[in-house]
Amino acid sequence: MTFEFHQKVLFKHCDPAGIVFFPRYFEMINDCVETYFDQVLCKPFEEIHPVGAVPTAQIQTRFSAPSRHGDHLIFRMKITKIGRSSAEYSVVASCAQEERLTSVATLVHVDSKGGPTAWPADIRKKLEAFRDDAL
Amino acid sequence: MTFEFHQKVLFKHCDPAGIVFFPRYFEMINDCVETYFDQVLCKPFEEIHPVGAVPTAQIQTRFSAPSRHGDHLIFRMKITKIGRSSAEYSVVASCAQEERLTSVATLVHVDSKGGPTAWPADIRKKLEAFRDDAL
Amino acid sequence: MTFEFHQKVLFKHCDPAGIVFFPRYFEMINDCVETYFDQVLCKPFEEIHPVGAVPTAQIQTRFSAPSRHGDHLIFRMKITKIGRSSAEYSVVASCAQEERLTSVATLVHVDSKGGPTAWPADIRKKLEAFRDDAL
Amino acid sequence: MTFEFHQKVLFKHCDPAGIVFFPRYFEMINDCVETYFDQVLCKPFEEIHPVGAVPTAQIQTRFSAPSRHGDHLIFRMKITKIGRSSAEYSVVASCAQEERLTSVATLVHVDSKGGPTAWPADIRKKLEAFRDDAL
Repeated sequence: MTFEFHQKVLFKHCDPAGIVFFPRYFEMINDCVETYFDQVLCKPFEEIHPVGAVPTAQIQTRFSAPSRHGDHLIFRMKITKIGRSSAEYSVVASCAQEERLTSVATLVHVDSKGGPTAWPADIRKKLEAFRDDAL
Repeated sequence: MTFEFHQKVLFKHCDPAGIVFFPRYFEMINDCVETYFDQVLCKPFEEIHPVGAVPTAQIQTRFSAPSRHGDHLIFRMKITKIGRSSAEYSVVASCAQEERLTSVATLVHVDSKGGPTAWPADIRKKLEAFRDDAL
Repeated sequence: MTFEFHQKVLFKHCDPAGIVFFPRYFEMINDCVETYFDQVLCKPFEEIHPVGAVPTAQIQTRFSAPSRHGDHLIFRMKITKIGRSSAEYSVVASCAQEERLTSVATLVHVDSKGGPTAWPADIRKKLEAFRDDAL
Repeated sequence: MTFEFHQKVLFKHCDPAGIVFFPRYFEMINDCVETYFDQVLCKPFEEIHPVGAVPTAQIQTRFSAPSRHGDHLIFRMKITKIGRSSAEYSVVASCAQEERLTSVATLVHVDSKGGPTAWPADIRKKLEAFRDDAL
């Protein structure tokens, strides 16, 4: 299954060159993941905190074409790997049929002290169901 | 040669978990690169715009340990490759002796229409001198 | 008439104290105004730029209670005054029945050189209709 | 006494109109206040949290002229009133001799539950000394 997250490019996202300032893309990606946890995993970030957290351990991103103010972006996210306390996702953002960025990242589930801790059973089950649908 | 950029972790950088929100790291990296262009290449971004721009084409980042409010970070940046219209840099941020993140990114020099265009001779010469010092 | 803009408090909005970092409220207010121009005035910001712009000339804000991660905020915006090239709006954000902030601001319509310039007739007409409904 | 905080206008601060996006000014003001607490009051924000916090209760700002990428801004801050658990400050930002914004805001010292609580004696003493120098 693929999770879709829609985001219009707003004034706040754009730089003097009139295109999205690249750190703003990472806010969009974070919003996409936060919405996925809320709507698909039924485990919104506000419930995970402050018992734990899901920090990003690594992220690789390629920006294939610039996005301009007013563009309607669709972020398509998939879960690609699930570890004991980690998960890898890929996300591709596009406008109409043009790809704008593709990113692969690893999240880690940590406890309140920041140490990696196994996914709770209910989250793990939903992550796996979502990933398997994507195969 | 290695360019050093200092950044204290401020209130604005931190999330409810009390650590740096990862998109904020990309703002810090952008500030580091902007300061490098200003102080080392003597070509501040405000002079490059609006004749051109130096958008980020790709960036890979690994977050090795969290940074907390008040930490004094040092970003150490090197130029690792220079193409006709592109440059690759690596940057490692650490606090005391602990590494916090390491990132490798590619910048592209574009003209006012967004198309890749060769580095001006003076910038290229300085990029090369800076890179060779790093070897 | 009152324009309503909904915004869930997301992870990116919150500070180490677990509440909305106040500069983020101004991004939300800007998003609210941008959406109002798009949906009510049918004049999205991306069409106003680069012919002109609508910078904020002044803004007064009182934060009556903190907002926490996960809160569902409703911003209720009204046009309160219309000048030749300016407009004043008020916006109140609340969660459930609790007020979180109230703000009054003045926008100025400027041309591409930044000088104040009269509202285009179509925008002015809609601003007035919207304001009159609020009386 | 007046506290001075220097901030060059960076790429990240600017919008498609090439001027500072106004919510970014509030980040700069917050950075100014945070640096004042650190350098003048010797009570950095990272020591106040998580025992307490100093949220902004209200802020009024007038933007007198736009700031452009590369401008060197100086924020001049004064403490104008001190209450049991609150403090009012004014800040004026200018570039060369041109005023860019003037802001007046009220901070409240709160405990870990968010309730107003008297300034610790050492902070209060320094706030008063700083204010009296300004008279």
